[in-house]
Amino acid sequence: MKAAIVHSPRDLRIEEADVAAMGPGDVKIRIRAGGICGSDLHYFLHGGFGTVRIQQPMILGHEASGEILETGAAVTQVRPGDRVAVNPSLACGHCRYCLEGKANHCLDMRFNGSAMRMPHMQGLFREIVVCAEAQAVKVAPDVPLELVAFAEPLSVCLHASRQAGSLQGKRVLVTGVGPIGALCVLVARHAGAREVVATDVTDAPLAVARQIGADLALNTASDPKALDRFGADKGHFDVVFEASGAGPALAAALTAARPGATIVQVGIGNGEMSVPMNLVVAKEITLRGTFRFHEEFAAAVHFLSSGAIDVRPLLTEIVPLSDAVRAFELAADRSRAMKVQLAL
Amino acid sequence: MKAAIVHSPRDLRIEEADVAAMGPGDVKIRIRAGGICGSDLHYFLHGGFGTVRIQQPMILGHEASGEILETGAAVTQVRPGDRVAVNPSLACGHCRYCLEGKANHCLDMRFNGSAMRMPHMQGLFREIVVCAEAQAVKVAPDVPLELVAFAEPLSVCLHASRQAGSLQGKRVLVTGVGPIGALCVLVARHAGAREVVATDVTDAPLAVARQIGADLALNTASDPKALDRFGADKGHFDVVFEASGAGPALAAALTAARPGATIVQVGIGNGEMSVPMNLVVAKEITLRGTFRFHEEFAAAVHFLSSGAIDVRPLLTEIVPLSDAVRAFELAADRSRAMKVQLAL
Amino acid sequence: MKAAIVHSPRDLRIEEADVAAMGPGDVKIRIRAGGICGSDLHYFLHGGFGTVRIQQPMILGHEASGEILETGAAVTQVRPGDRVAVNPSLACGHCRYCLEGKANHCLDMRFNGSAMRMPHMQGLFREIVVCAEAQAVKVAPDVPLELVAFAEPLSVCLHASRQAGSLQGKRVLVTGVGPIGALCVLVARHAGAREVVATDVTDAPLAVARQIGADLALNTASDPKALDRFGADKGHFDVVFEASGAGPALAAALTAARPGATIVQVGIGNGEMSVPMNLVVAKEITLRGTFRFHEEFAAAVHFLSSGAIDVRPLLTEIVPLSDAVRAFELAADRSRAMKVQLAL
Amino acid sequence: MKAAIVHSPRDLRIEEADVAAMGPGDVKIRIRAGGICGSDLHYFLHGGFGTVRIQQPMILGHEASGEILETGAAVTQVRPGDRVAVNPSLACGHCRYCLEGKANHCLDMRFNGSAMRMPHMQGLFREIVVCAEAQAVKVAPDVPLELVAFAEPLSVCLHASRQAGSLQGKRVLVTGVGPIGALCVLVARHAGAREVVATDVTDAPLAVARQIGADLALNTASDPKALDRFGADKGHFDVVFEASGAGPALAAALTAARPGATIVQVGIGNGEMSVPMNLVVAKEITLRGTFRFHEEFAAAVHFLSSGAIDVRPLLTEIVPLSDAVRAFELAADRSRAMKVQLAL
Repeated sequence: MKAAIVHSPRDLRIEEADVAAMGPGDVKIRIRAGGICGSDLHYFLHGGFGTVRIQQPMILGHEASGEILETGAAVTQVRPGDRVAVNPSLACGHCRYCLEGKANHCLDMRFNGSAMRMPHMQGLFREIVVCAEAQAVKVAPDVPLELVAFAEPLSVCLHASRQAGSLQGKRVLVTGVGPIGALCVLVARHAGAREVVATDVTDAPLAVARQIGADLALNTASDPKALDRFGADKGHFDVVFEASGAGPALAAALTAARPGATIVQVGIGNGEMSVPMNLVVAKEITLRGTFRFHEEFAAAVHFLSSGAIDVRPLLTEIVPLSDAVRAFELAADRSRAMKVQLAL
Repeated sequence: MKAAIVHSPRDLRIEEADVAAMGPGDVKIRIRAGGICGSDLHYFLHGGFGTVRIQQPMILGHEASGEILETGAAVTQVRPGDRVAVNPSLACGHCRYCLEGKANHCLDMRFNGSAMRMPHMQGLFREIVVCAEAQAVKVAPDVPLELVAFAEPLSVCLHASRQAGSLQGKRVLVTGVGPIGALCVLVARHAGAREVVATDVTDAPLAVARQIGADLALNTASDPKALDRFGADKGHFDVVFEASGAGPALAAALTAARPGATIVQVGIGNGEMSVPMNLVVAKEITLRGTFRFHEEFAAAVHFLSSGAIDVRPLLTEIVPLSDAVRAFELAADRSRAMKVQLAL
Repeated sequence: MKAAIVHSPRDLRIEEADVAAMGPGDVKIRIRAGGICGSDLHYFLHGGFGTVRIQQPMILGHEASGEILETGAAVTQVRPGDRVAVNPSLACGHCRYCLEGKANHCLDMRFNGSAMRMPHMQGLFREIVVCAEAQAVKVAPDVPLELVAFAEPLSVCLHASRQAGSLQGKRVLVTGVGPIGALCVLVARHAGAREVVATDVTDAPLAVARQIGADLALNTASDPKALDRFGADKGHFDVVFEASGAGPALAAALTAARPGATIVQVGIGNGEMSVPMNLVVAKEITLRGTFRFHEEFAAAVHFLSSGAIDVRPLLTEIVPLSDAVRAFELAADRSRAMKVQLAL
Repeated sequence: MKAAIVHSPRDLRIEEADVAAMGPGDVKIRIRAGGICGSDLHYFLHGGFGTVRIQQPMILGHEASGEILETGAAVTQVRPGDRVAVNPSLACGHCRYCLEGKANHCLDMRFNGSAMRMPHMQGLFREIVVCAEAQAVKVAPDVPLELVAFAEPLSVCLHASRQAGSLQGKRVLVTGVGPIGALCVLVARHAGAREVVATDVTDAPLAVARQIGADLALNTASDPKALDRFGADKGHFDVVFEASGAGPALAAALTAARPGATIVQVGIGNGEMSVPMNLVVAKEITLRGTFRFHEEFAAAVHFLSSGAIDVRPLLTEIVPLSDAVRAFELAADRSRAMKVQLAL
């Protein structure tokens, strides 16, 4: 079985890897599509992010879909031949946070393609994956597997949306429209937002934002004052999804948000951000982090299967696994790429 | 009529001032007690804070109580001789925010002792004040007026508490126990918190915090790792009142807060704060500003009148108006003073 | 000017009426479309509902749209020729509830076509209406006025949706799909519900429910146990819009709702309902009333203008004013009619 | 070992019973105090309530405290000699509701002294109980065990309080002040309510309500219009705890509650209640059920241990186990008894 394994920064190799043994509650999946995410890029370009660094070779990837090859004896929900999205998140199910309904904060989380624990959890950019039944979520028979591979990042954005409460009738700002920001635009539209404005510092993703329903898409690099008009009378937006992780974007969002608004911080950037806290205080802004997802994965699969959320404009190119390095380099170029996937 | 008027940094004078004319809906109050607040100190020491600067002589003070001398023809709720707390906040009652129930965000707010608008709103450190009837809130006949003068800062903390939702049974951290932080300790106890921990960088206010019910009061200057023990298993506190406005306090609070916790930012400091946003994101913290108060003023008066909240341990000294400069210098020294009041 | 005036049960007359004098803040509107609502029917059929009874002749109608004929000197937002939806709700703007942001609970509400106060507030089924500028909400130039006349009932349903919080990804049940229930189906779909199930006791509205996006539409008259399957494992639905006002529908909803679900009570029926409170308690159901609307009116106009909510399948017939009695009788027959409008 | 076993209505016997075998995660407790609850009374008087009926002899009791006699090999948190409150609630820890943080809705709940499942879960009115370690919650060394036995009903009321959100500064009505209603009065005071009004149809519990801090305690049997004054201007109370399960109490509460108020339904009565739903709708009342408790048990033990909640005025009499029938008869007489306990 072939896999895309990162050894060190810029050292990504397509190598043979072993297929794990199956337990009775496991399934074996032939992966077909795998989307390259920002954290994959960080491992590839920089060997990690913040304090999380690659300490041993790791298969990348946590956005994937495929077909069931084989099922363990105790498996009941899927069968060989089923087409599935793979949920890379496996919580322990018995720590305090799991029992509080906050499985995304599990104290013993196993998340594919993450170097947070040692040994690292290997990722999904490989031909064959063995995982727990609960991680294999069946999709509609006719939905293309490359769309289904969006289930993971879409889950992240549905979870972000949940942090903001109802968006119906709300005015929403999305700062930073990379793949996550663009999915936030789609999610805001899907949740009945009245107005969706997007900002970025690059034109290409802004064009996609317009295509998927942003009422306005503004380049804050060419016009740093683009959001100023929304600051009149203490602000305009009810909800902001801050998906850039950039300090100036958050500062502009705080100016454009109305008193009592919620800003959901989706992007992290390099961890530390300089925040005009006087605006958080004076406007009583709720600045709330969002981290991964949990039950949203099933909903994401549902919306992708039904077409209620159409991610096709986000898919830049599908690249064969053998050409993974080129795929990663393309994915890293925001002027050319939104979401790049590997075909496995 | 005498008043304490700031002309420029360190130039505070006791001078004669005119008594304003009364309208039919106004009351005339003989002020008896006035508490010195952090913003009064900022005007006195630095001529303002952030972009708010004294541009003309201004009477300081917005924490005051006194007795009604006279009432306008349309006044119905109070009568001469009534003892009242003075609410320094007067919202317009017809802007969009007033009609949304967010009067503290009024677009035309008049707030005593604030240089935010020109001409400045004169403050309450004067013998006689004329104000709208709604600003004079009757207190119980037997409660000392110096306690009633805590109604304004207590309102701020009741409003901060509201941002956090129910505190009953919760574990609460208060970072920074100046007068506002100390009132947050009292408010958290009053709201049924299960555990209240306070931190500061000075011993004197920590001693007060212990006296008023903090289970633990930790000096983070002498022991910068004092909160580290609370960071195990992703954190301990459900709610934090960050009342220091200091970056390191917020950073420590983010480490000690558990996933899904709410941190209410009460202090502003110098406006810009460096925030470890990776913790906000990874723990899905709600970081929420709180600004002044509105309907909480009546509740504050009620709790002070009934003794349900006992602020006596916070009152350091009552200084005659004639000695106002000394009062301000005492109030600025955290090793000696919690709340200093003027007697008028 | 002609108007549809109810004098007593079954006594609805098309009569001449005077046009009111205009104040400087008023607008004069030529009404073009007026939808017949359940309360109009109650006045027509029974002379009122509950304790609200017609005590003097009253023009019916509170769902209307038209064109501005004339504007007062102080009017700034609309001009003659503008096409508008008419908001029948005019709150006082200064009572306690208005200042709490709960204008729909205004202590001095004036609501067109309602017999709640004396003299009655005359309604909108008349050729010419004079009202406050704030009641005339401009619509897109090309949206048909008959669709715009849905702004009022759509507002009711957007307000009901707000009571339930975010619907994105939720499983929603709508019991009773008359015009309000059907709009709840549309609103739930618009807000990103994952599943929408509708019930009614008549087939015709269920067919409309299917047409507008209900995943399942069940006749609980022909199959009283239709919802039983959803009661397994303590229930299935996250949110219910109870739009029938019928006790059995609420009881079935309580069985089919999962622990912690919210049931929004939209319909009133005859006021008193027998409720299996043991289910409310044992499943910790939130049973919450919803009453009219406030800021949702602008959003409703927006969604109708943009086509984001398409109400066309709900419009049964447009009947000339002269034929109003026939229109009312048609509207009262659920086997034939969903929404009937008058053309004026 | 002796136990109080109900065989059929009015047939309660003190009999010998076997001590269960211990597993490695279990503890053996010598029960010392056991409070008689309303459901115990229902089993004793009527053989059950609603569809829950005694089908085999059952030891009653689910409010108890005692001392650890012995601990299994895997037990780490308590040791022999520890004094504990016994949590009668043992959720499965892996069903969907447990993993959503709603353990009180566990699909496989084992609750001591309940006939809901077959075989019945035996209760705590016995000299020796073997239970899971998690059910034995250590208390302070010096708190009397009869006070600790209030942990269970206090948990119920802390959970009810949670349904209402923050009570600080709120006006609270408690309808029905049996033991649960009285504990709601204490809990509302503890959570910082501004005003607490209690109603009942019997004078004796109203006297207790006054003693424990109700501002007003009204007999609605002798004065059925006692709450009418609170109905002015659409209502007065922000929060109601309806602890009577009586239709007229809920109806009066709906009249006295202000728009947007929350009514927490704590009592069940006979299941079906006639509700003036027109008031729920017109005032947008949130009527929310509350069922048992989960994490509140630890907080209840804490507040009883610290004295923050003082339940002593509620304890009518402690009766020896041998005299259990008299104890039950006393407990059933609201004119003489609030909480009756058995001494074991």
